[in-house]
Amino acid sequence: MAKKDKFVEAITPMNEDFAKWYTDVVKKAELVDYSSVRGCMVIKPYGYAIWELLQRQLDDRFKATGHQNVYMPMFIPESLLEKEKDHVEGFAPEVAWVTHGGTEKLTERLCVRPTSETLFCEHYANEIQSYRDLPKLYNQWCSVVRWEKTTRPFLRSLEFLWQEGHTAHATADEAMEETINILNLYAKFCEDVLAIPMIKGQKTDKEKFAGAQATYTIESLMHDGKALQSGTSHNFGDGFAKAFDITYTDKENKLSYVHQTSWGVSTRLLGGIIMVHGDDNGLVLPPAIAPIQVIIVPIMQKKEGVLDKANEIKDALSKFTRVDIDDSDKSPGWKFSEHEMKGVPLRVELGPKDIAKNQAVIVRRDTREKYFVSLDELEAKVSELLQEVQKSMLEKARVHRDKHTYTATTMDELTNIMNDNPGFVKAMWCGDTACEEKIKEETGATSRCIPFEQEEISDVCICCGKPAKKMVYWGKAY
Amino acid sequence: MAKKDKFVEAITPMNEDFAKWYTDVVKKAELVDYSSVRGCMVIKPYGYAIWELLQRQLDDRFKATGHQNVYMPMFIPESLLEKEKDHVEGFAPEVAWVTHGGTEKLTERLCVRPTSETLFCEHYANEIQSYRDLPKLYNQWCSVVRWEKTTRPFLRSLEFLWQEGHTAHATADEAMEETINILNLYAKFCEDVLAIPMIKGQKTDKEKFAGAQATYTIESLMHDGKALQSGTSHNFGDGFAKAFDITYTDKENKLSYVHQTSWGVSTRLLGGIIMVHGDDNGLVLPPAIAPIQVIIVPIMQKKEGVLDKANEIKDALSKFTRVDIDDSDKSPGWKFSEHEMKGVPLRVELGPKDIAKNQAVIVRRDTREKYFVSLDELEAKVSELLQEVQKSMLEKARVHRDKHTYTATTMDELTNIMNDNPGFVKAMWCGDTACEEKIKEETGATSRCIPFEQEEISDVCICCGKPAKKMVYWGKAY
Repeated sequence: MAKKDKFVEAITPMNEDFAKWYTDVVKKAELVDYSSVRGCMVIKPYGYAIWELLQRQLDDRFKATGHQNVYMPMFIPESLLEKEKDHVEGFAPEVAWVTHGGTEKLTERLCVRPTSETLFCEHYANEIQSYRDLPKLYNQWCSVVRWEKTTRPFLRSLEFLWQEGHTAHATADEAMEETINILNLYAKFCEDVLAIPMIKGQKTDKEKFAGAQATYTIESLMHDGKALQSGTSHNFGDGFAKAFDITYTDKENKLSYVHQTSWGVSTRLLGGIIMVHGDDNGLVLPPAIAPIQVIIVPIMQKKEGVLDKANEIKDALSKFTRVDIDDSDKSPGWKFSEHEMKGVPLRVELGPKDIAKNQAVIVRRDTREKYFVSLDELEAKVSELLQEVQKSMLEKARVHRDKHTYTATTMDELTNIMNDNPGFVKAMWCGDTACEEKIKEETGATSRCIPFEQEEISDVCICCGKPAKKMVYWGKAY
Repeated sequence: MAKKDKFVEAITPMNEDFAKWYTDVVKKAELVDYSSVRGCMVIKPYGYAIWELLQRQLDDRFKATGHQNVYMPMFIPESLLEKEKDHVEGFAPEVAWVTHGGTEKLTERLCVRPTSETLFCEHYANEIQSYRDLPKLYNQWCSVVRWEKTTRPFLRSLEFLWQEGHTAHATADEAMEETINILNLYAKFCEDVLAIPMIKGQKTDKEKFAGAQATYTIESLMHDGKALQSGTSHNFGDGFAKAFDITYTDKENKLSYVHQTSWGVSTRLLGGIIMVHGDDNGLVLPPAIAPIQVIIVPIMQKKEGVLDKANEIKDALSKFTRVDIDDSDKSPGWKFSEHEMKGVPLRVELGPKDIAKNQAVIVRRDTREKYFVSLDELEAKVSELLQEVQKSMLEKARVHRDKHTYTATTMDELTNIMNDNPGFVKAMWCGDTACEEKIKEETGATSRCIPFEQEEISDVCICCGKPAKKMVYWGKAY
């Protein structure tokens, strides 16, 4: 057990230094390595396997709702980026510019895509002629680049992996419906698969996407009480269509502009998983995206029959779970630590004494509860526990979030919460950007969203005292 | 039928202008659209769906052989690219350079990866300490950029999608074994899934990868008699390991360099599929990668019961195939043409007369054979035909290739074949690069590979008459 303790000591406790705890987990759980390119990460096999599980399940949901994948170029000519005014203003300051191809200086600079609205618009302008061509429900999985000054693995990196959906519709109503359908799809996916509860709402004008008519967001609360914007869905109206001249002839042969949306989630979600579920022993993964759902650790594995039995169990479990066996020459304690660090949801321990009793020990990663289970009932119990873990991780995250969701009616209250024990704060707002800016300046809290589920905390804006228009979730954000 | 004819006429016949036929198919089968970035393509939903099917099946084979996916940064600092001499000489002339991030000029240029050996080496140097860390069997799916002067969709584009495997091993033997195992995996995948027969062999020194000790290749023959290099597998020995200082301590505590490999296939394979299987009616897809394997075309679909029956069949077939129904308001002839253009392997026609006879008509895309099948036997017949089509497409491609594989013992013979009716030409070679260059200059043929299956066509080099060392496949190449 000495080795185990040594291993566990290597992580900074969460309460001591949350940021350090985070980077420790990222490193020790073997999710990411740094590279010689500032702010770019190497996503290691274990981290990438989580991303692949997330990606496939989200992609299945996109396809089930009629979306199709495509691939657009990674470069955007400067003149194309400049076509929509708000959009270029928002993104030009943070793009990487390609100026040379081989030995030749380019006549026009190309930026590495920070997002691909402009490319999709150009393509849609070519593709869409008639109402018969609508809707277009396209999505792309790719990497994008934003020249950030300070970076952190998954949360904010120069390059990150994401999906970006881009759709075109005949009417404003259809575009609005798509925007909200996707937001709901995201929220449900995050709850069902990542076990992270989401607040759904609209971004204020100040926080909306460059070029959007309206931006909707899903917001989650991390263990340290900070908020994470976890996905966004934008309604563009016909703004981009006008800038790029994307028109169609309707059934009455009248020429109209299309209405568009875009939406995305990224590897940032992996940061959310770490910060919502992790603990001082490392990562805790919801079974739905755990590359290994069950790790079998044989005890006294050199004793005759132990490895055979362990392998027999592995074969049985592999029919319905992602299961592995750790028969390396490390000590059991060391193995326990390693698989805890990697967040494997269930551990099955099996030694000669267990085999004699026809039993195994199951240990849950999330609660560390132990179960002594007859080998005859092992498959049923593993199956039951995987579902139970998935469910109770969501529940635990919801309890934590609700416990750290406050209301405030004065600036002092808001400031105190932000300083002492941050979380989501529900407070009323007059709708004025000046107040939003003042709140940020004085309390450190930014508006996270105007939630769909409105409450009336008071009649007046927490900042200026004028009549309130909306209840807003405020918080410190990643 | 007027509409159908009009549609069919729109493609240039293969024999008239093969290059034009190719771009017609790419466009009309809705695989690709051009973008405003020179040489970069938009891969449309149908083209991308083929790529996804290819990707998933190849990825399954990588995983089944112990390989793991990772993700490396898309940028390579200039100094990192320069670490291995041959490598930088080969690639520096054709990379895209990022010189600015946002408004700031970078102190060191970054290239957009043309291939990622240097990044993997840097990572491996961090990760590998002991023999316990070996082998590393990593793969990555991503896009890469090479600043080509002339480009063609799929075959040669500025940006393309690919996978690149990068492995590190304890011994030279293990690296060699991996190199060949992957070449065999590629060849088997191409035959099983893409129905394209491959010649396996080694590249000459002139044609090998920049920085490799040896490059192995799979080569296929297109319908016009030109060769397509379809995938390569490189053995690096310890060359990169020495340049990047990637060492490990072995069981005797001795420090050794690792031995490495890399290997890749790309969206170029889609070009191969088009040019091996396509015909004057468009694309022909092997069922294994056909996004739609069976298209049901109802005849007189407004008659009562027709659409109901068609949907019933669709439901039954969807249990084991990717099936769709075309109930649009286009004429049946128009629908036939469209789905032929897209290469859908089987068409099921069903009209009131068929229903009265309890039958449907199945038409194969590859041979255009018609089958009148009792509805009771439809599922079995579809299943049987899909297997049959997959098999016979491979066989047909093999027959075509063998028919266009010649032998030559004189330069005149080789020249005549290349001019009159090109194909693979087997001819002897002394091993001298000067002869290889002369052959290219005089006949237009490049060395495709030194095949594993050697024959003795003659005793002397076709070019210089000195004693021959190897039989080489020569051909005009894409």
